[in-house]
Amino acid sequence: MDVEIITIGDELLLGRTIDTNSAYIAHKISALGLNVRFKSSVGDDVAEIEEAIKLAVKRSGVVIATGGLGPTDDDNTKKAIVKVFQRRLVFDEKLLEDIRARYARRGIEMPAINQNQALLPSGSHIFKNKIGSAVGIGVIEKDFMFIALPGVPVEMRQIIDDEIIPFLKGKSLGRPLQMVTLRTNGIIESQLAEILSQDLKPESGVKLAYLPGESGVDLRVVGSGDKVEIVGESVRRLVSYIEKKVSKHIYGRDSDTLPSVIGQLLNDNDKTVAAAESCTGGMLGEMITTVSGSSKYFLGSIVAYANEIKERQLGVSKGLLEKHGAVSEECAVEMAVGCRRVFECDYALSITGISGPDGGSEDKPVGTTYIGLSSAHTNFARRFNFGVDRQTNRARACYAALELLRREILDID
Amino acid sequence: MDVEIITIGDELLLGRTIDTNSAYIAHKISALGLNVRFKSSVGDDVAEIEEAIKLAVKRSGVVIATGGLGPTDDDNTKKAIVKVFQRRLVFDEKLLEDIRARYARRGIEMPAINQNQALLPSGSHIFKNKIGSAVGIGVIEKDFMFIALPGVPVEMRQIIDDEIIPFLKGKSLGRPLQMVTLRTNGIIESQLAEILSQDLKPESGVKLAYLPGESGVDLRVVGSGDKVEIVGESVRRLVSYIEKKVSKHIYGRDSDTLPSVIGQLLNDNDKTVAAAESCTGGMLGEMITTVSGSSKYFLGSIVAYANEIKERQLGVSKGLLEKHGAVSEECAVEMAVGCRRVFECDYALSITGISGPDGGSEDKPVGTTYIGLSSAHTNFARRFNFGVDRQTNRARACYAALELLRREILDID
Repeated sequence: MDVEIITIGDELLLGRTIDTNSAYIAHKISALGLNVRFKSSVGDDVAEIEEAIKLAVKRSGVVIATGGLGPTDDDNTKKAIVKVFQRRLVFDEKLLEDIRARYARRGIEMPAINQNQALLPSGSHIFKNKIGSAVGIGVIEKDFMFIALPGVPVEMRQIIDDEIIPFLKGKSLGRPLQMVTLRTNGIIESQLAEILSQDLKPESGVKLAYLPGESGVDLRVVGSGDKVEIVGESVRRLVSYIEKKVSKHIYGRDSDTLPSVIGQLLNDNDKTVAAAESCTGGMLGEMITTVSGSSKYFLGSIVAYANEIKERQLGVSKGLLEKHGAVSEECAVEMAVGCRRVFECDYALSITGISGPDGGSEDKPVGTTYIGLSSAHTNFARRFNFGVDRQTNRARACYAALELLRREILDID
Repeated sequence: MDVEIITIGDELLLGRTIDTNSAYIAHKISALGLNVRFKSSVGDDVAEIEEAIKLAVKRSGVVIATGGLGPTDDDNTKKAIVKVFQRRLVFDEKLLEDIRARYARRGIEMPAINQNQALLPSGSHIFKNKIGSAVGIGVIEKDFMFIALPGVPVEMRQIIDDEIIPFLKGKSLGRPLQMVTLRTNGIIESQLAEILSQDLKPESGVKLAYLPGESGVDLRVVGSGDKVEIVGESVRRLVSYIEKKVSKHIYGRDSDTLPSVIGQLLNDNDKTVAAAESCTGGMLGEMITTVSGSSKYFLGSIVAYANEIKERQLGVSKGLLEKHGAVSEECAVEMAVGCRRVFECDYALSITGISGPDGGSEDKPVGTTYIGLSSAHTNFARRFNFGVDRQTNRARACYAALELLRREILDID
């Protein structure tokens, strides 16, 4: 069954807000085996929202909209629903009590304006919101389902996970797409493509996509078709072909991330890690600690942004800094060694580089980054040239550091 | 003139890739005064890309597409362009040389597959790509412009900034929207709405939008209409009304961020800052250093994820940790005080909290966070309850810490 996603809000068309909602919904919906065919965005205008909903319910069996359910004047989704589906707005006393209680728990008196959020289109199916005041609204008919969710990402995600997915599962609408994502780091897209195309035998119903990003290149294998078992076989064949060809670059699958993979490896080996960061300003530690439970293996980091902190906190010598500069192989090694001494950890990672946009030279252009690693067995640093913008250079450096650690633990290369 | 954005790629409909491109383009295009009316996404299928382009050039004067220009088999945008606009693919020798030279500079031999990227639809306008191999392709006719850009965000952004914006400016297609965004922190959306609605006199052609996010609530004032000066007056009136009503919560305007505002304040006052982080794992330092030039005032941070690091590196006493726990007002104060001692800085910020999803209790539920500040004049910590998901709790904590510093420097409250 085809699904369509509509995101609503002037902020999306003005471009100062990045739409993360539609990707989240699409991901969850695809995993159910439903096919997301269209995505569109409209502004806060009632007539334009109406038009978008009308078109969507005409061409798609399930339509999920986000945004425009807040309490303020620029929130118009309910007005549009009422017009398109010929409902009226009715007051839900029970819902009002819930909203009031939610504010009370936070120690705030409910602002009067939030009363609006207890007004719902007549005959709506309510999808509970555990975090905020705007509930999800369903208009469920025989031949289509229209669902409107709040645009605040944390609220939308909670309602999708706890309410919408179980609800749609109960309707058994589709056959699962078969999808495997192999995640790589340390090799560029076209090199991967060159290696993988050598002996590749295309099979119908199975597609391979290359998805480059900050964390490396993801290889996505997607199979579709009515013959579930045959498609499954084709997907497995392609996946094991890829695994054989580029094995050492693959750090994980699907929802694995470099921080989660590193965490698992450190846990399994009962080892600890700490970091010494310069240009990344703390991003490496931040990434490692995206994993809940990372306190088992991550001790902490020293962000030595200023050179005197590199000296004082990490024991990098003044002479070394004067001779080689802070962005050097020598400094990266000293930072890692100093970090391992300070934290008394098994592995220490260090990053020092020129993130840009300023500070580059002919010899060390913007993006030049040294990543160091210290363990009981080895102390070394490697040079990388990322050469993009400040934030991307920083993110790539952190992922490269984690990949360096992964290969060190697994003794790859 | 109406503009439409098409993003191309299976990954967008499968939802594992967040589309940041369309927001970037919409933002830049809106600032030119062009009206982004539609956004849509399609997969990598040639026929579906064709349909999307046909519909778009029929209803919009300027169509900008991203994605599907890579070297691999799943990149189909050029095939669709050739069909829709009845062109053929021709080989561009000069472009091939450029691509080969780019690889040579990185010390890599050009993979053979990248030759594809020198194939262009006949009669195309080329928009140069300084970062990667896929150039932007323009099909420019009297009554419409169709522009295809690569989907890799850094490449797309560079081409938009350096090529597309100057190109469109030269065509003088629109009248600038008048837009001011006031950025707030420390007050929730409905409280803002309640305060602002008290004496608000709506004026036609001017809209106020509330945009809540991790960094606080943005208030966007947008004016449109033919009478540029009258609209400008209305926008200015609304902006100064808001500034009067909620002055202390407004930290900046438009492209200001809390890190950039803090940076400016520290620079202006010739002061330095450092951070002691626990649950945020380094995110506060990472945020501060998103600002190029932050080395002038940011010395570094100590990420004390493990309790023994809080003791050893920050001097938090064992007794305090045993009595009050690491997530406590007392610990936050000690962390800040210790941080200021270690870094010899003017201001030290500390963050300790329960990010979740585990670790909460009745007394200290997930999201409970203490933020400390130490300066020559004061040492204190404040309790916050963010109560959302792990990553959002962490981001809100960092913004709240920066806002605490802003108010301290400016002596607000």
